[in-house]
This record gives sequence, C-alpha cells and structure tokens, in this order.
Amino acid sequence: MTRSFHPPVRTLMGPGPSDVNPRILEALSRPTIGHLDPAFIGLMDDVKRLLQFAFRTQNSLTLPISAPGSAGMECCFVNLVQPGDKVIVAQNGVFGGRMKENVERCGATAILVQDDWGAAVDPHKIEDAIRSHPDAKVLAFVHAETSTGARSDAETLCGLARKAGLLTIVDTVTGLGGIDVNVDGWGADAVYSGTQKCLSCIPGLSPVTFSSRAQETIQKREKKVQSWFLDMGLVMAYWGGGQRAYHHTAPINMLYGLHEALVILEEEGLENAWARHARHHAALAAGLAAIGIEFVVAAEHRLPQLNCVRIPAGVDDALVRRRLLEEYQLEIGSGLGPLAGKVWRIGLMGFAANRTNVLFCLGALEALLARTGAVAAAREFYGP
Amino acid sequence: MTRSFHPPVRTLMGPGPSDVNPRILEALSRPTIGHLDPAFIGLMDDVKRLLQFAFRTQNSLTLPISAPGSAGMECCFVNLVQPGDKVIVAQNGVFGGRMKENVERCGATAILVQDDWGAAVDPHKIEDAIRSHPDAKVLAFVHAETSTGARSDAETLCGLARKAGLLTIVDTVTGLGGIDVNVDGWGADAVYSGTQKCLSCIPGLSPVTFSSRAQETIQKREKKVQSWFLDMGLVMAYWGGGQRAYHHTAPINMLYGLHEALVILEEEGLENAWARHARHHAALAAGLAAIGIEFVVAAEHRLPQLNCVRIPAGVDDALVRRRLLEEYQLEIGSGLGPLAGKVWRIGLMGFAANRTNVLFCLGALEALLARTGAVAAAREFYGP
Repeated sequence: MTRSFHPPVRTLMGPGPSDVNPRILEALSRPTIGHLDPAFIGLMDDVKRLLQFAFRTQNSLTLPISAPGSAGMECCFVNLVQPGDKVIVAQNGVFGGRMKENVERCGATAILVQDDWGAAVDPHKIEDAIRSHPDAKVLAFVHAETSTGARSDAETLCGLARKAGLLTIVDTVTGLGGIDVNVDGWGADAVYSGTQKCLSCIPGLSPVTFSSRAQETIQKREKKVQSWFLDMGLVMAYWGGGQRAYHHTAPINMLYGLHEALVILEEEGLENAWARHARHHAALAAGLAAIGIEFVVAAEHRLPQLNCVRIPAGVDDALVRRRLLEEYQLEIGSGLGPLAGKVWRIGLMGFAANRTNVLFCLGALEALLARTGAVAAAREFYGP
Repeated sequence: MTRSFHPPVRTLMGPGPSDVNPRILEALSRPTIGHLDPAFIGLMDDVKRLLQFAFRTQNSLTLPISAPGSAGMECCFVNLVQPGDKVIVAQNGVFGGRMKENVERCGATAILVQDDWGAAVDPHKIEDAIRSHPDAKVLAFVHAETSTGARSDAETLCGLARKAGLLTIVDTVTGLGGIDVNVDGWGADAVYSGTQKCLSCIPGLSPVTFSSRAQETIQKREKKVQSWFLDMGLVMAYWGGGQRAYHHTAPINMLYGLHEALVILEEEGLENAWARHARHHAALAAGLAAIGIEFVVAAEHRLPQLNCVRIPAGVDDALVRRRLLEEYQLEIGSGLGPLAGKVWRIGLMGFAANRTNVLFCLGALEALLARTGAVAAAREFYGP
C-alpha cells in the first residue's frame, strides 16, 4: 500500500515556486464548491478585479488561465498569431526560445532578435528588426527573464511596437507583484504571468490580460484558434459578465489560493511590495558582494526577485545545491542553457522576500563555501 | 479592501466537482516544494504507478496533465491526429461534440456518428462507419458521458477499431474510479480522465494514458504537435525516468491532492469502489422510483455515478435547483444541450457516493416536490 505523501518543509529560494504564504495554503483546503455556484461567480469577479489591479490595467479580458505559465504563453500566441504571420521574437534567455517554438507551432514565422543571456533586450535591435520587417504583426519579448534575472524595458519596447502598428506579447511570469508591471501604461496587448513567483501562490495558474486591440484581433480571426482549451472567445464566455457559459471546470481550490494571494497583495499595496523586493535584494547583494560572489546581470537591469550569480571558481555546483537542500532544507536554482553549471539563481519572490530568508541563505552559503562576512554585511545593510 | 473568500459548505451531487474527501483538502495545504526536488520526484513516481493501477494499464506513458479534463482531451487529439487525418467521432452527448471541435482544430476531418442523447454509442453504427471510411486513422468516443449519464461499451468499440487498425481515443472523465476502466483489457490507445469526479479530488488535473502503439504514432509524427504545452514528447521528458528535463512547473499542491486521492482508492480497492457506486446508485434509483422520477438512460447503460433523470411535469427546474442550493446547501446538475430544462443530473461520485448523501438528497427532493416515499424506499433498499 502506498502511504500518504508528507513533503519536507523547505525554504524555497529558487526561480519558483517560492515560499507560499501560509494564508494561501490554508485557503486551498477550504471546501470545494461548484464552478457555476453563485458564490464561486462572486470569487471569479473578485479575482478579475484584483488581477486588473495587479497588472495595472482596465482590460476587461483579464483572468487566470487554468494551467501553468507555459499555457498562459501558449494562450497569447494561439489567439493572436495566425498561420503565415510574421512575429518578431526577442530572445535573451530560455523563454524567448520557447516563444519561438510557439510561433512556429502556430504556422507562423519567427524573426529572432538575440541578446546575450543576462543582458536586457536591446531596443535598438528591436527597432531595426521592426524596420526590416514591415510586414511583422507581433513583437514578443520577456519582461522578466527567469532564466537569467534580467529585466527588459517593457515600456520602450511596447512603445516601438505600437508606433509601428505591431501587437505585443509580454512574458512577465516572474515580474507580477515583484516589480512594476504597468500593462496600460506600457500599452501592452497580451501579457501573461504565473502564480508561483512573486504572488507566492502555488504553481498551476497563469494570469493573462488582453487589450481591446488584442480582443479585436481575436474577434476578426479567419481561422479558429488551434487550441479549444485556450480559445479566449470560449474562455471569455465563462469568465465574462452576464450568462456564464460552461467551458471547462475551473480549478476551484487553486482559485481560492490565487484569490487569497491577491488579497494579500492588495493589503500590502503594489508599491510596498516592489519596495520590499528591492530592499531584500539589496541586502542579499551586499552579503554576496562581501564574499566575492558576482551577479551575471548589470546592476541597472537586475530583477530584485531573481538573483543570478556566478558560482565561484572551484566550487562544485551540484554538491553545494544538494548540501543546501539536505542540510539546510534550502532550495536555490541551477543555471539553464549556456548558464548551466555556471550560475545559481537565488529567488526572493513574494513571501520569500524577507530578512529571515536573506540572512539564512547567506549564512548557509558562508558555511558551505567556507567564507565569512556575508551575513554581517547584510545585517549592516538592514541596520540596527 | 477585498476580504478573504470563505466558501459556503455545500454537498456536491452534480456532475462534478463532487464532494472532496477531507483527507485530500488537507493534503493540498501541505508545504510546497520545488518541482525538481528529489522528494517531489518520488511523489511523481507514486502518482504514475497509482494511475496505472486506477486505469488498469501497464502503459509507461501514464501521468496527469497539468490542466483540467478538457486539456486532457485536447492532449490526446493534438498528439495523435495530424492535419489531413480522418477521425471517426461518436457523439451521444456534449463531449462527442467537443471531440469534433478538437479534430477540426487539428486540421483533420471528423466523421460524426450520432446516437441519441442518453443512448450508448451503437457499435453497429461504428462498424459501418469504419467500413465506409477505410482511410480513417482514429476512433474517438466517450465511455462515460457526463452530460447524459450513459455508459458505452468501451471494450467492444476498442475491439472494432483495433481489428480495423484504427487508434482509439477514449473519454472517461466521469468513469475513472466509479466503474471499470480497463485500458489494457480494452486495448485502448489514448484515454483521459479528470480528478473532480469519481476520484473525489479537486478539479484541475487530467490523468492520461497512452499505449505503446500511440507512443509510436507520436514518435513518427512528421509535423510537430501544435501545442507546446501538451506535446507528450516534451511532457514525457519531465515525467519519464532518468534525467528529468524541465518542461513546465508542475502544479505541486494539486498533485499532493491527486496522490492522496489515489492512495484512498488503493486502500479501498477498485472493485470495492465500483461496488459502492453501484450500491448507492441502486438506493437512489429506488427512492426516485418511489416518487415517480424516471431515468433518461436505459437501465443497462446507466452510469451509477451520474444519474440523469427527467424533471417531473409542472416542476420549475431552476427554482428547485436554487432552493436546493440555498435551503439545503445541495448542488445537483442541470441539463445541457437538448436536455436543458428537461433533466437533472444527480452525481454520486467518489466520496459523495454514500448513504448520507443519498438519503439527504431524496429527503430534500421530497420536501421541495411535495411527495413522499423516496427516503423510505431507499432506507428499505439499504436494509436494517
């Protein structure tokens, strides 16, 4: 007979999932109700409104896709891209590559504009690409690159696209709740995120928002969206106002969790949440600097919530991560792609962006790397 | 400020979600760990093995898709169907229609074979369709039709397809855990289910299983699967043995819930679970008969877990369902499609298939319909 699963209690400072607020874990275990229950419809309305708040948008089409962030990405592409379209895709990490895959699986052509892993997307290259491809329909880029910790200038990139009449698809899976995500201010058209990063919720849902321009594009499509599950026309009929048409059974209890996560964000306030991420990032950075650990990303492009740092020479990547997990119950992330074996990714996301985690992580690294001064430097940063 | 959401405590006897076992709700709130944590890999192995047990299969490609049942359906179609293929689709309710949508969105042609809503799929019609379309590649049908409560003979239908060299796609969203689902015995090729029906788990995951023949078909595809998120080649690399390649972030806590649901099923035993569903269905049927409420489906094709019954003449459908919900906190389901307004769907799924629920539901119906004898008949069925 198989026994019930009781997970170890970890501290999650990798690239997500991040430490989940206990309020959210408790919300998950509340009694399940039906997906057409009037009480559930009330929760859906709350979630829509709170996501509009978090995304800083008035977009009526703002809701969580019932699947992880990669389905949110796919949702944006399959709804906005048609066969034969040309899409400019900025790649400066893993997720730009996945965008290209999505474009091609829609029967469209991807024009790849590359920047180094760890660099922000270069607006000049995007400007050139837009000029060289006047028939391109969409610009897609990653605002907060989880694989490298780089933040790109979404406002500038969306502005370039808008000026040239392109729609934008923006990945901010790691951004939402940790740094400013200003969908209406940017003039972005389709933006997706995840729940397991700076919202501190469990993984499994993908908040998305579509501008009215994006909605019109979807309505004018000649060919049906290739995914039935992700067809926004059908999803809207369930999440929209008025008569709720059954589409699929919503993941009820996960939505309890997301609701609670958004209530917590509203209580704290967006600006306070961003400031908290920035503060603990600065403390962590002070500590890492004290033991000679360097960041991959230049200071002005760093995501506070995803600290991508070079593994010191002579240090065994896998061994240190395994000892952190086994001896300290602490998870940090490994490198991906060309950064595999070369970097660690230390997350300070949502509930995990706190002083206890910063000092604990620095202390564990000091011990395993046989160095001193990191905790002291962070303590000094925090002040008395 | 938005307040935390505290759902009403309902008794869920609709078409799903069904009452969730409190052990599963508690499991959901256990601490989140990373999707590449060695402890989580252990849980994934358990879930695969337990799903093989539940599906009665040795298929190595057996796992839960990280999204609801309709994504499980789409997963089967996008992986097995290629543009230009011909697919025979049996329709005897809502979900056959959705299968047709999926076929067409894959760029393939659906040959629709229709039976009345409430009837089982007629094997003779399928045999004829296979004969008339020797170039068809796939037969798709619904084993347990949630919209009507009809059970079709999966063994016979899969046998016809196999003899003619067609692959089969089988929907048993409402079947798994409530009636016999014998994937290897049937020789089915791609079978999908849901978690919120007879597994009594929360909605949001879709267990799927693919035969070795289906796996070969996927490996031989000329065109990439149109969905990146549902591409089984990529999903397998994460769920398969050996080195786990990151694909998407698994919905960790939902998988805690599914694990617990499957542990509960293993503890009870498949045959015992089927017998329990059959017994409480018979008790409910005895009670309904006593107050003149008739079933839509002929006795030999009825699903015990989904009781589709005709609304008595002169009874206001919406009013009764609203009063059940408001006065009794009891949810039953309405009719869909041509059955809208004509039937109720009373679920006895998983944890909800118990004597308390049967007697409670019959008592509430007696009261609202001003009839007597239903509870007494069910009590008599159960015996002293």
